[in-house]
Amino acid sequence: MQGTPPPTSPADSYTPTDRTVPTRSAHRASYDKELVHAILDEGYVCHLGYVRDGAPVVLPTLYGRVGERLYVHGSTGSRPLRTAGQAGPGLPVCLTVTHVDGLVLARSAFHHSINYRSVVVHGVAHQVTDPEEKRTALDALVDHVVPGRAADSRPANAKELAATAVLRLDLDEVSAKLRTGGVNDEPEDLSLPHWAGVVPVRRQYGTPLAEADLLPGVGLPGYLTAL
Amino acid sequence: MQGTPPPTSPADSYTPTDRTVPTRSAHRASYDKELVHAILDEGYVCHLGYVRDGAPVVLPTLYGRVGERLYVHGSTGSRPLRTAGQAGPGLPVCLTVTHVDGLVLARSAFHHSINYRSVVVHGVAHQVTDPEEKRTALDALVDHVVPGRAADSRPANAKELAATAVLRLDLDEVSAKLRTGGVNDEPEDLSLPHWAGVVPVRRQYGTPLAEADLLPGVGLPGYLTAL
Repeated sequence: MQGTPPPTSPADSYTPTDRTVPTRSAHRASYDKELVHAILDEGYVCHLGYVRDGAPVVLPTLYGRVGERLYVHGSTGSRPLRTAGQAGPGLPVCLTVTHVDGLVLARSAFHHSINYRSVVVHGVAHQVTDPEEKRTALDALVDHVVPGRAADSRPANAKELAATAVLRLDLDEVSAKLRTGGVNDEPEDLSLPHWAGVVPVRRQYGTPLAEADLLPGVGLPGYLTAL
Repeated sequence: MQGTPPPTSPADSYTPTDRTVPTRSAHRASYDKELVHAILDEGYVCHLGYVRDGAPVVLPTLYGRVGERLYVHGSTGSRPLRTAGQAGPGLPVCLTVTHVDGLVLARSAFHHSINYRSVVVHGVAHQVTDPEEKRTALDALVDHVVPGRAADSRPANAKELAATAVLRLDLDEVSAKLRTGGVNDEPEDLSLPHWAGVVPVRRQYGTPLAEADLLPGVGLPGYLTAL
């Protein structure tokens, strides 16, 4: 059996469904849990889609992950959170996270592309009612933005908790999609005099700008210098 | 009338609708065309939402802008492009573009936020059938990724054009939303010993990686050194 990869345990990957098997470029899809978690944990802004009056709505929002659950939050007055209700059937959503890694410039316009890693989660979001789960979710949201920050800020008080709605989305119907590598030009285009290659793209953090009214002696925390 | 801003001409801004007036943080919304165009032109990846079997789908995809029209493209075999059809009623979509500009770290977990600029476009996407419009749209898609690149690549041939479907979405029901500035902590939290401030976030391009088989003498084009 040399050369044959070990069979993937069902526990290691999400089960593909009709919605998570792409019609195009299926070789770029993955259901590997570790890969999905890594892509999710590198980000903090997702695009959350839901249906309102039969039409799609896509909004950028923060998210956090705790194990096999994602959390998003918002004001209790916001549309999707009101729609999800507290005791209702939940809100069908599609939550997508995308990282751009490179611009792929081919000699032909047709083969231009992007190197990227994305995760798409389909499911039904439910409002979190358990106070402990709500706190855990809010900590995860803050720690997704800056790991270590939740412990170094004042936790939400009762009034703030009451004003904040949290939605839970289980990682169940999930796929990742990736493009990596160089240019795929047609053989007959290789003799064209155009530059071709990949321009790497990264997220870069600038120098943190402290508020003017910090308490004396409060310096830049280690989790920020590590960014 | 000193101190009163000049009335906004309808030509300068999009007309707000029920869908584009946010229920929360309405002060962060804008309908200014120049601002919307600037946010759109700074990006090249959008998140496109549509409804499939009653459930939302959100996919990352490239886009381009030509005046008051956005274009997305894909294989003629892809789901949303098939659904949009060539002669049908079109595909209701929501197209969202988001730029993250900073991490806003407040002393309280509750007031943590993100500085961002986003544009949300609601509408019905239609397949482009006019060959000239299709070529213009594909050039715009390439030039959104790297301005100046479309003219320095081989244009699509007849076979490639036939394999590519392009969707048009008019900029009509559109809003921008922005958060800028520093931390908004509660007055009673200012005496807490936590660091607070904003961490700037930018998109950074790395050194372009040329394909190994470029023609001799083909150097890095000026539009890439300018990135």
